[in-house]
Amino acid sequence: MRSFLPIPEQHPFPIQNLPYGIFSTPEKEPRVGVAIGDFVLDLAELEAANLLPGSDARSSSETSEVRCSRSGVFARRDLNAFIAQGEDNWREVRAALLYLLDEQTLALRSNDQLRRRALIPAQEVRLHLPVSIGDYTDFYSSKSHAANVGRIFRGENTALLPNWVYLPVAYHGRASSIVLSGTAIRRPCGQIKRATEAEPHFEASRELDFELEVGYFIGAENSLGVPVPIKGADQHLFGMVLVNDWSARDIQRWEYVPLGPFSAKNFGTSISPWVVTLAALGPFRTTAPVQDPAPLSYLRSDARTAYDIRLEVQLQTASMPAPAVVSRTNFKELYWTIGQQVAHHTVTGCNLRIGDLLASGTISGPGPAAYGSMLELTSGGKEPLRLPNGEKRCFLEDGDTVIFTGYAQGDNYRVGFGEVRGTILPAYTGG
Amino acid sequence: MRSFLPIPEQHPFPIQNLPYGIFSTPEKEPRVGVAIGDFVLDLAELEAANLLPGSDARSSSETSEVRCSRSGVFARRDLNAFIAQGEDNWREVRAALLYLLDEQTLALRSNDQLRRRALIPAQEVRLHLPVSIGDYTDFYSSKSHAANVGRIFRGENTALLPNWVYLPVAYHGRASSIVLSGTAIRRPCGQIKRATEAEPHFEASRELDFELEVGYFIGAENSLGVPVPIKGADQHLFGMVLVNDWSARDIQRWEYVPLGPFSAKNFGTSISPWVVTLAALGPFRTTAPVQDPAPLSYLRSDARTAYDIRLEVQLQTASMPAPAVVSRTNFKELYWTIGQQVAHHTVTGCNLRIGDLLASGTISGPGPAAYGSMLELTSGGKEPLRLPNGEKRCFLEDGDTVIFTGYAQGDNYRVGFGEVRGTILPAYTGG
Repeated sequence: MRSFLPIPEQHPFPIQNLPYGIFSTPEKEPRVGVAIGDFVLDLAELEAANLLPGSDARSSSETSEVRCSRSGVFARRDLNAFIAQGEDNWREVRAALLYLLDEQTLALRSNDQLRRRALIPAQEVRLHLPVSIGDYTDFYSSKSHAANVGRIFRGENTALLPNWVYLPVAYHGRASSIVLSGTAIRRPCGQIKRATEAEPHFEASRELDFELEVGYFIGAENSLGVPVPIKGADQHLFGMVLVNDWSARDIQRWEYVPLGPFSAKNFGTSISPWVVTLAALGPFRTTAPVQDPAPLSYLRSDARTAYDIRLEVQLQTASMPAPAVVSRTNFKELYWTIGQQVAHHTVTGCNLRIGDLLASGTISGPGPAAYGSMLELTSGGKEPLRLPNGEKRCFLEDGDTVIFTGYAQGDNYRVGFGEVRGTILPAYTGG
Repeated sequence: MRSFLPIPEQHPFPIQNLPYGIFSTPEKEPRVGVAIGDFVLDLAELEAANLLPGSDARSSSETSEVRCSRSGVFARRDLNAFIAQGEDNWREVRAALLYLLDEQTLALRSNDQLRRRALIPAQEVRLHLPVSIGDYTDFYSSKSHAANVGRIFRGENTALLPNWVYLPVAYHGRASSIVLSGTAIRRPCGQIKRATEAEPHFEASRELDFELEVGYFIGAENSLGVPVPIKGADQHLFGMVLVNDWSARDIQRWEYVPLGPFSAKNFGTSISPWVVTLAALGPFRTTAPVQDPAPLSYLRSDARTAYDIRLEVQLQTASMPAPAVVSRTNFKELYWTIGQQVAHHTVTGCNLRIGDLLASGTISGPGPAAYGSMLELTSGGKEPLRLPNGEKRCFLEDGDTVIFTGYAQGDNYRVGFGEVRGTILPAYTGG
């Protein structure tokens, strides 16, 4: 399979990928696009040219006001209406795009006028949050990460808590502060109490951290009161993005008992702009690690599906000419699978809605070269990371930029996520 | 002040109240209404008759699609657009409603045709969720409740954790499962591990509980990165509802360390249908309890504003002819004020959006007659509650109905919340 557009072998967005996003240009209102090589394909234009199937809008959440102006699902500011059309429609649209972009097909390739309107150089577009996110849930599904953090926060004896091997631990995150890659992140202030202090004080966090995660958008709803069975739970997902769940460790340490992290996480969560579909990731399914003890039956499945996605963390300080890789790991390391996360999330009857975001929790591999947070990479800030230019870092400093990238490797092609990036701004000082 | 409609002295919805909600009838699509006595006043009709000020729609979150069909803010399925218009507009609309409903005013009173269209008997309407809720945050601001639960979950020595007196502890709740009063609540299933067991098992919760809370909707946004100062923090709120944060204690006990409650709470949260505005509650402002230790400066304010709202919990089992009161307390008991909650929530730069719901956490008074949950009323299920018909309850059983009511008492009138009610359905058994 090859596109009529020239796309190098290591490019994240070949014809095998076709991730969805929301873009605008000075002339165009935000709308749905697909990344293809160094272009963005405007699906609203293709829809208007009757080149896409399933142009009936059928978003379950939309109101009559919304329906009035547009019949389609692509001339919209988020992917929700398209996602709500369901799996059969996603498949048809993907098939149509594969056909239109194929080197043998002339419908788009040879129509200069349409090409000018529908294929926009990527550097000319502005990207937006791809999905209107109702609820955001963050899991804690990497065993290495949970054990590392537990050791640092609570000591060796209670590193991995007794419930961790029985259930995919999770907490509700903050949806309002989810921002697009590239948005600068302001260092949070809050209450901090160091071990040597009798009382807390107020200051800017000194232990600002990243968390390397993968997130997935819900593509099929379940009704309140009706759990999603483990078998087929993956089919409730539409696609994936990279997630940086920024965390203030000093704030977290003081506040998190007994109700979990709150201020330490609610100031910002960054996601990558292109949603890579489960269809594109299909060839990279593999088997998740064996679980011991065996999970309870509502979490048990013969198909323990994991996804082989290589992940990389880069850090660039204000004085470095280029970013340096500080960690490499793989999404397939997760102990709890996505399917188990969906089954556990809904086992009480909790309803998942189109566009809700679930994230994996920090993904750490077994060794220090594969840790997904500064907290782990520096043993809780005790052993600074040495960067190529001689600088050291225990946690993030103002002006530091963190970049996550990820891809699945095929034969002579990659299904890539692009990147999620954020630079740290100094703390707010009023005014 | 008196309405031309006859309203008894103990009625929750006199002219002094004017709470907002969303209603529909067989003939009318969902729209904004105001409860007045035993009627619902249709604001879309008043708007269409040009009897209300500020008919420009100026919702900050609305898209161009929404703007196309309606200029007003009342012919809508949620209050968000009206709330987004801001405090000056809320004041003008309230003034117009006070004028129109006054016994001296003839504009509505003497216009039979308009009265028939705009004043609908309350028993003929269907009520809907009043607000589209983005994020839901639940605080833990009653000192009696925190100490009681801590004692039951962790023992006397760590009942009130060290951070509790320094910050208003909170966690992010689940927005998708917030339902309107009257919606039945299905008993959740999940992982439970009793003290005598070596491993968890899966079953329906046996410790299903209510939590008596008050919630408040955000009426003014802050930008990401910019905290709301404690002074004037109350002005970021639009109005209040009663909240039942249903909880499965056995599920909670096993899952909540270290990231807080998740499955134990995500299966349902009920709210009352009428949003009582801060304007209507103005006369019932009082001073919150003195705090010791003094809070850090970002939480310190001379005006420690509390609201004197009497709250009552009633329980009715399937075999009781009428509900029985099981607890009475007051919203003014909260240790952390609403203003402190808003200031703490945003101190890291977290952005609050129009329609976000904050809730107080369970409100328990100092003695057993004022406890806001079964967990507390029965000392963790050890001392059953005796009901008037001889039945006993440690936790809620299938068919039990829980009803919260609340009101502020004025001179010869009440500003009431109506009720939030829910009946327990048996656990889901598949199919």
